[in-house]
Amino acid sequence: MSRTKKRQILHVKAHVSTRRRDSLAAEEPLEIRVGGQALTVTMRTPGDDFDLAAGFLVSEGTLASSEDISTMRHCADLETYNVLDVRLAPGVEAPEARNFSTTSSCGVCGKASLEAVRTVARWSARDDPARIGSHVLRELPDRLRSAQRVFDRTGGLHAAGLFSLEGEALCVREDVGRHNAVDKLVGWALREDRLPLSGTVLMVSGRASFELVQKAVMAGIPVLAAVSAPSSLAVELAAEEGLTLIGFLRGDSMNVYSGEHRLTLTGSGHGSARAATSG
Amino acid sequence: MSRTKKRQILHVKAHVSTRRRDSLAAEEPLEIRVGGQALTVTMRTPGDDFDLAAGFLVSEGTLASSEDISTMRHCADLETYNVLDVRLAPGVEAPEARNFSTTSSCGVCGKASLEAVRTVARWSARDDPARIGSHVLRELPDRLRSAQRVFDRTGGLHAAGLFSLEGEALCVREDVGRHNAVDKLVGWALREDRLPLSGTVLMVSGRASFELVQKAVMAGIPVLAAVSAPSSLAVELAAEEGLTLIGFLRGDSMNVYSGEHRLTLTGSGHGSARAATSG
Repeated sequence: MSRTKKRQILHVKAHVSTRRRDSLAAEEPLEIRVGGQALTVTMRTPGDDFDLAAGFLVSEGTLASSEDISTMRHCADLETYNVLDVRLAPGVEAPEARNFSTTSSCGVCGKASLEAVRTVARWSARDDPARIGSHVLRELPDRLRSAQRVFDRTGGLHAAGLFSLEGEALCVREDVGRHNAVDKLVGWALREDRLPLSGTVLMVSGRASFELVQKAVMAGIPVLAAVSAPSSLAVELAAEEGLTLIGFLRGDSMNVYSGEHRLTLTGSGHGSARAATSG
Repeated sequence: MSRTKKRQILHVKAHVSTRRRDSLAAEEPLEIRVGGQALTVTMRTPGDDFDLAAGFLVSEGTLASSEDISTMRHCADLETYNVLDVRLAPGVEAPEARNFSTTSSCGVCGKASLEAVRTVARWSARDDPARIGSHVLRELPDRLRSAQRVFDRTGGLHAAGLFSLEGEALCVREDVGRHNAVDKLVGWALREDRLPLSGTVLMVSGRASFELVQKAVMAGIPVLAAVSAPSSLAVELAAEEGLTLIGFLRGDSMNVYSGEHRLTLTGSGHGSARAATSG
């Protein structure tokens, strides 16, 4: 269950090669079962597997509170910890296995496809009164990085951090898969009975895809900030769902793609607030 | 079918906010069907969809030559281009839908899970006599970047490039998903009847995951180079399959994780070759 693995490698610098031991981010498959039935396999960094499975099932719309789970356990017959079974509480509907329409008719082509990837949240971030100062946002990338335990050693992990509107780190998770890092966060929140995550900011180390925005929406998070670029569909979904989406958050600059009403332009020294102006 | 989308955003620099138009990497779902039956949905950047579907089916072990495809077409009833149907040639076995064992017994837990994610290649890179000079490898990140058409405008795309052993770009593809960029490359190669891709190098802009190594193996590519870190399982699979795996390829340095016999330490100026030394 180690998060890193040591390996002998050959390092080449200009014409010189040297052998050294290197730390790699561990990656192993996790099969998530619900009620004994296999649902999906994800390639993940071992650790926080219960959070990962719980968060995945929040994203799928299956879980909304810790009471929806009866038990979770690893199936450890082979001394691997790569299969995890979630037993749902009575009355909680199991997710559909990931199969798609098998008709060859194209009457609802694009729509059916889009419907297959959209999930429906039980709460909306639209009316979340959260406001956040730009000086708080600016500090999040550094705070995320300093909270990362493994990144500096391997360079191979995505990080996701959940912060308060004052910039306090509530939970930070890492994974070889960016979606897994967010699932681990959301699963932690579910198991702590913190859903919906109103009044929080989700900060991710990489890009903001459609899937990450969807995971934020499903967890009731009103603000998503990313170090890198968002995709077009990420912005469209964020705008549709009333989520504040921030990208290219680097140094003292950032791009606001949707929900700019939640952002207050603040100086880090004097604490004064100015409304965002349209130029 | 545009690869970028324009959007009005708010740019914040220090205390100043300005409105500007920004280019975003387009992301849309693509449902891949085989013989009219839905197989999977992937979030991808539109464009090169035929290559993407073909490459995906090479990775799944379904296709090995262009003759394995009877026809490919978009289902365009709704004027979206987000559903694509592949008709296989007679005798070509359709891939299994992505369902997993549904037994709740754990007798083969980890093994069953791993088997679900492993595929079997029709060729092996192990005996590929390819050799590559370190000076050629060093130039690939710049060549990949200069061949990227969209990255500079959006910052939101992964790139994958297929190069000859002399560093000549054979094909470059971009996508919001790194796996899709590689599938697009491999699908291009299949449709050009170039499989297996012996004597080539696959260069990717990000990290090297298990899945990317597997895609290289399935396409018969002997060398995979990445700008960033590989995962533990990526290295294990590369070593097992005889693939040369290079990571942290930046400036004049790189890490060789497996298959170092293919690397020749060469100077960019004088062309002299020295064998890799163990320090």
